[in-house]
Amino acid sequence: MASSFGHSFRVTSFGESHGGGVGVVIDGCPAGYSISLEKIQAFLDRRRPGQSVLSTPRQEKDQVVCLSGLEGGKTLGTPIALVVYNKDAKKDHYTDMTKVFRPSHADYTTELKYGIRAVSGGGRASARETIARVAAAALAEQVLEELHPSLKVIAYVESVKHLQANSVDVDSLSREKIDEHMLRCPDEQAREQMSQLILEAKKKGDSVGGCIRCLCLNPPKGLGEPVFDKLEADLAKAMMSLPASKGFEVGEGFAATQLFGSEHNDHFEVKNNEIRTTTNFSGGIQGGISNGENISMRIAFKPVATIFKEQQTVDRDKNPQTFKPKAGRHDPCVLPRAVPMVEAMTLLVLMDHFLRQKMLASCAKSDASLA
Amino acid sequence: MASSFGHSFRVTSFGESHGGGVGVVIDGCPAGYSISLEKIQAFLDRRRPGQSVLSTPRQEKDQVVCLSGLEGGKTLGTPIALVVYNKDAKKDHYTDMTKVFRPSHADYTTELKYGIRAVSGGGRASARETIARVAAAALAEQVLEELHPSLKVIAYVESVKHLQANSVDVDSLSREKIDEHMLRCPDEQAREQMSQLILEAKKKGDSVGGCIRCLCLNPPKGLGEPVFDKLEADLAKAMMSLPASKGFEVGEGFAATQLFGSEHNDHFEVKNNEIRTTTNFSGGIQGGISNGENISMRIAFKPVATIFKEQQTVDRDKNPQTFKPKAGRHDPCVLPRAVPMVEAMTLLVLMDHFLRQKMLASCAKSDASLA
Amino acid sequence: MASSFGHSFRVTSFGESHGGGVGVVIDGCPAGYSISLEKIQAFLDRRRPGQSVLSTPRQEKDQVVCLSGLEGGKTLGTPIALVVYNKDAKKDHYTDMTKVFRPSHADYTTELKYGIRAVSGGGRASARETIARVAAAALAEQVLEELHPSLKVIAYVESVKHLQANSVDVDSLSREKIDEHMLRCPDEQAREQMSQLILEAKKKGDSVGGCIRCLCLNPPKGLGEPVFDKLEADLAKAMMSLPASKGFEVGEGFAATQLFGSEHNDHFEVKNNEIRTTTNFSGGIQGGISNGENISMRIAFKPVATIFKEQQTVDRDKNPQTFKPKAGRHDPCVLPRAVPMVEAMTLLVLMDHFLRQKMLASCAKSDASLA
Amino acid sequence: MASSFGHSFRVTSFGESHGGGVGVVIDGCPAGYSISLEKIQAFLDRRRPGQSVLSTPRQEKDQVVCLSGLEGGKTLGTPIALVVYNKDAKKDHYTDMTKVFRPSHADYTTELKYGIRAVSGGGRASARETIARVAAAALAEQVLEELHPSLKVIAYVESVKHLQANSVDVDSLSREKIDEHMLRCPDEQAREQMSQLILEAKKKGDSVGGCIRCLCLNPPKGLGEPVFDKLEADLAKAMMSLPASKGFEVGEGFAATQLFGSEHNDHFEVKNNEIRTTTNFSGGIQGGISNGENISMRIAFKPVATIFKEQQTVDRDKNPQTFKPKAGRHDPCVLPRAVPMVEAMTLLVLMDHFLRQKMLASCAKSDASLA
Repeated sequence: MASSFGHSFRVTSFGESHGGGVGVVIDGCPAGYSISLEKIQAFLDRRRPGQSVLSTPRQEKDQVVCLSGLEGGKTLGTPIALVVYNKDAKKDHYTDMTKVFRPSHADYTTELKYGIRAVSGGGRASARETIARVAAAALAEQVLEELHPSLKVIAYVESVKHLQANSVDVDSLSREKIDEHMLRCPDEQAREQMSQLILEAKKKGDSVGGCIRCLCLNPPKGLGEPVFDKLEADLAKAMMSLPASKGFEVGEGFAATQLFGSEHNDHFEVKNNEIRTTTNFSGGIQGGISNGENISMRIAFKPVATIFKEQQTVDRDKNPQTFKPKAGRHDPCVLPRAVPMVEAMTLLVLMDHFLRQKMLASCAKSDASLA
Repeated sequence: MASSFGHSFRVTSFGESHGGGVGVVIDGCPAGYSISLEKIQAFLDRRRPGQSVLSTPRQEKDQVVCLSGLEGGKTLGTPIALVVYNKDAKKDHYTDMTKVFRPSHADYTTELKYGIRAVSGGGRASARETIARVAAAALAEQVLEELHPSLKVIAYVESVKHLQANSVDVDSLSREKIDEHMLRCPDEQAREQMSQLILEAKKKGDSVGGCIRCLCLNPPKGLGEPVFDKLEADLAKAMMSLPASKGFEVGEGFAATQLFGSEHNDHFEVKNNEIRTTTNFSGGIQGGISNGENISMRIAFKPVATIFKEQQTVDRDKNPQTFKPKAGRHDPCVLPRAVPMVEAMTLLVLMDHFLRQKMLASCAKSDASLA
Repeated sequence: MASSFGHSFRVTSFGESHGGGVGVVIDGCPAGYSISLEKIQAFLDRRRPGQSVLSTPRQEKDQVVCLSGLEGGKTLGTPIALVVYNKDAKKDHYTDMTKVFRPSHADYTTELKYGIRAVSGGGRASARETIARVAAAALAEQVLEELHPSLKVIAYVESVKHLQANSVDVDSLSREKIDEHMLRCPDEQAREQMSQLILEAKKKGDSVGGCIRCLCLNPPKGLGEPVFDKLEADLAKAMMSLPASKGFEVGEGFAATQLFGSEHNDHFEVKNNEIRTTTNFSGGIQGGISNGENISMRIAFKPVATIFKEQQTVDRDKNPQTFKPKAGRHDPCVLPRAVPMVEAMTLLVLMDHFLRQKMLASCAKSDASLA
Repeated sequence: MASSFGHSFRVTSFGESHGGGVGVVIDGCPAGYSISLEKIQAFLDRRRPGQSVLSTPRQEKDQVVCLSGLEGGKTLGTPIALVVYNKDAKKDHYTDMTKVFRPSHADYTTELKYGIRAVSGGGRASARETIARVAAAALAEQVLEELHPSLKVIAYVESVKHLQANSVDVDSLSREKIDEHMLRCPDEQAREQMSQLILEAKKKGDSVGGCIRCLCLNPPKGLGEPVFDKLEADLAKAMMSLPASKGFEVGEGFAATQLFGSEHNDHFEVKNNEIRTTTNFSGGIQGGISNGENISMRIAFKPVATIFKEQQTVDRDKNPQTFKPKAGRHDPCVLPRAVPMVEAMTLLVLMDHFLRQKMLASCAKSDASLA
């Protein structure tokens, strides 16, 4: 269904940007795990707008509340409902303004589909909906930390428009380091230029896009299924379900098409009695199943649709209109805030497939498993 | 579940490459539609290996049989089972050879996950599994032809390694034209060079990859859902579930990150009393929902993992091994055969979302719809 | 998944009896329907304990709040979250008392399954969880009223222990009439005796059970699917998922086994140009699909497990214990409150299958349908 | 979806009674289990018509074939497709005869729903469809035998019309004993009378119904989920999805409504260091979750709709018709053949919930579980 994601660790998102709140129900979380709401809050705070001059000046508090599923701080195995209430949400009515379809937003397609839409704010198409994903993922991460402690999921801004971060030292990467700078790009030089570029675009009322790199370091083996639910297929869906994403690749991705098979193949070797690959062009997934090597993905985000320039458009009555939004309240670049969103979707996919694989493994014939 | 795809038009795939057969059960197909098994066979024949010197010389017949769901050539609304029996499938046993994990194949991860695998052929990881997808899609296409006659789903080879097809005239594209040449690239000049390149790689026992472009011309409006089941999200999952795919993009995709918002936004206008966009950088999908403009996707396929060179690897007992497959029976380039697979997955996604949207639309308040 | 119900109209329930609240997310509700929260509140009030001396004296307010999915009172097509916050919920800790497994409650099996449970109140096994179902159904009913106005779903108490309501005049039945008496039994004479019986049981600290009859009058035709999702199968699941239900029958049910086929078969006739059955032993469903005749079900509810007598039991440390609950706060008979719960589950099943059938019907070939 | 059942052990049924065959795809079966096709065949043979004078004289062979998912007799973890091809299936066309809606069959509702139906035989409504369920269950049973060896699922005929088997010694029950007599009733005296009754009904061209008792002896603990997917809810759905079933009860069922709470409650005690109940009025399930005590169910089957008497009905053109089937080929009583069908559906539910519970248990915090 449209608003649920995952098979065994299943999250259901709800909430418009200007309704009562945005929340998530998590069904299938195993019981007995200690959950810190502070950690969930901290993850949500990374998603929140208004963290820097590069993003919107809104100061939403986004305070998470847990309505169910925890007692004494521990998961009960029952559905966990997390909500962030909307403060100061203003309810609009259909006005001349709200009848206008903003270019490259979801206004038109939403009305086309439903015949109605939340005219106050972006409704479900608002980035505010990602609160649900991030809150669920921040909880999932705490469970995964106990189930597979070595796993680290880290994303960062790899490019903004044509500006590219130079190659990054994976081993020294940490969310803390990446978060040190508001741009969430670990390359010091590049991020200065990127910030410059974004501010210039902002000044002109324009916007820019870019790419996020996401890494899963020391991931569990055996995640993903052979045919439709390949791990990369579910990761691709996860990422392409984020607002403004337009492209996804795993491992070498599109660059893999430039190589001969003899260059791209990853050879196997045994290291510390473990089967490993000598290279990792596959990006940690082979035949749809994780092989234990680091998983590497890249996701493209288009430039933000909200720009402060006059644009030609039409309204719901099919009259031509020119549209220019009121100043304020919009990022010229979503990239820094997309970093925790990408991490969140990755965590939801890994958590779900971890449980699915756990079920299979728990029934496996003891003489059979390599894991 | 691993082996099912789609929500309302739901296909369940089964079959190993060397078992009794490969098949699909289609659940949720509407009743009363005339289905031509010949058309399904014709679509399957496009997928079949051995169509040219560029692909494997196997001559599988891949004859489709329908076991249920049709009577008098019409869909009954009940599950439709289509099977292609495997001819001459040789059953191997675990031998020294089958114990060896072929580099960048699914052998290792399959055993890791299940503790066992079909040692005869590639099992579920074989491209032969895509028979199920293509058969189901060939049926879906016949239903869609009645439900939305203007739709055309057409894919072609856009690049092989570094060789790129020049821009293609979309209006004159047809499957027939594309199929005229075994490479399935509509650019005459490019395809000659591509063929050359593939044959050279083949001679060296090597393999190459490339990109497929897929277009949905005149698609239905309103397909896709606002949050997780965005149309591009389900398309991304569909494509990334194909063997050897490593990247996906829609609309401008990764190139969109090079543009300013003011360049990338698609303005609305009214044409023939219909709301349209003046440009189509969004690739026909906005806010996860199709807006009626053409949908354009690009999918990256890595070079084939089977190469006829000696490679270092290990076996299931963790002994180092060198591996070189016996000659024959493998494509040096999957791209031409990937064309119908990409079309098939696109059709399955469109058919599923068409039914989902149909349900909503059939309940819509009459004064509300723009569609 | 455990906490979701329905395929196309999908409700996800959350909330413990003594947590932050109990709520539901409704996914798949069509757009543009006017929803009255007052009507939802009124339905919830019928479920609420403390409505009479026959039921628990608790005075929970159960005020419903809508967090999403509505704007200007209309459904947006997006997920609708409804919550009833828990007032005065006291959080207990594991005490000697809470370690004791109450006989025929879910305490033991919940700990068995999860290794943990909400020790404050009954957790998810509390009848309070049914708030989620009733709230969702009260909304569904408002949508169904527009989609199929003739439908009426009415339940009533048919028996309490050995006391049986005499045959009831279906045509004059209404919820208003049934609700006139706190027992929700339309037979005036029987309900007096039933009330007497319940009060006597209460005086002795004991409890009683009984049966609910549920009718769907003038239901839509064509609901239900031929094999697993037969309409009666989904209704059976719905009813048997209610706390304390132990039996389900449709049409003549168990009594049908006493008849010859020649007695039980419903003959067809044409009335007002419509195909009807002359009798309705089938209870409105044939081959899993509704035929338009009234649907009739009976559901058995066991006597309430909470009794105010000393009982032998054990605690989680496997020590023998005697258990007697503190006075107050429990119904001696769930039947009157079970009436709206049964109606609610019926409505959820009908709504879901209505949408599923709508999808099929909207694609049906025009020359084919009888409906 | 209509044709799939189960969440983690998911079976998809296909096939009309007179199409190419009836089959099932099993998705989610754990890997490495040895499967005997002979055992599947033996289970299917118990379902087969024509086993005695009490049932139809058809001599279908019902030979099961496995198309996928097994290699060397072991499950691969991939989807398992089992098919029974239809022999001598005659394809009818719409004739005057097939236009007539047989009373209390699915003919009318199927056409109502789909606008079309398989006129050759009963299509999906035929008992032949249960081949898919029985084949899948016969496989599931072999996996369960290894995962929980003490479990026994045994059903038998408890009543035919008004004739009731006397209480049966559960400890000495076995399928072999029950199968010794064609009626599958373990009470020697009762079954003679029942046989007599059925033969008399047959002679008159009439039919009878009755009840099946199904027991799960020594079942796994912890199966079932607290809210919608209660074990008894899924069992109820399973049973009510069988052709001709009209009622379901678990534990004391409807008789429980005749007891006081003080009579019905099951007290806990510790036996051999295990928590057990002293009585088992709950029928092995409390709060929707199995407690390890025997599970007991009863299912009502109506008299067979096919009788050899003239009946009033209508045809699809709404003309009145009299209907009397040609002699032969139909059971006067489904009960004996319903026994393996009921066992099959029970096994499918237990297998599915076993896997679901296994996943939770494999993630449980070690200090928490009672199991």
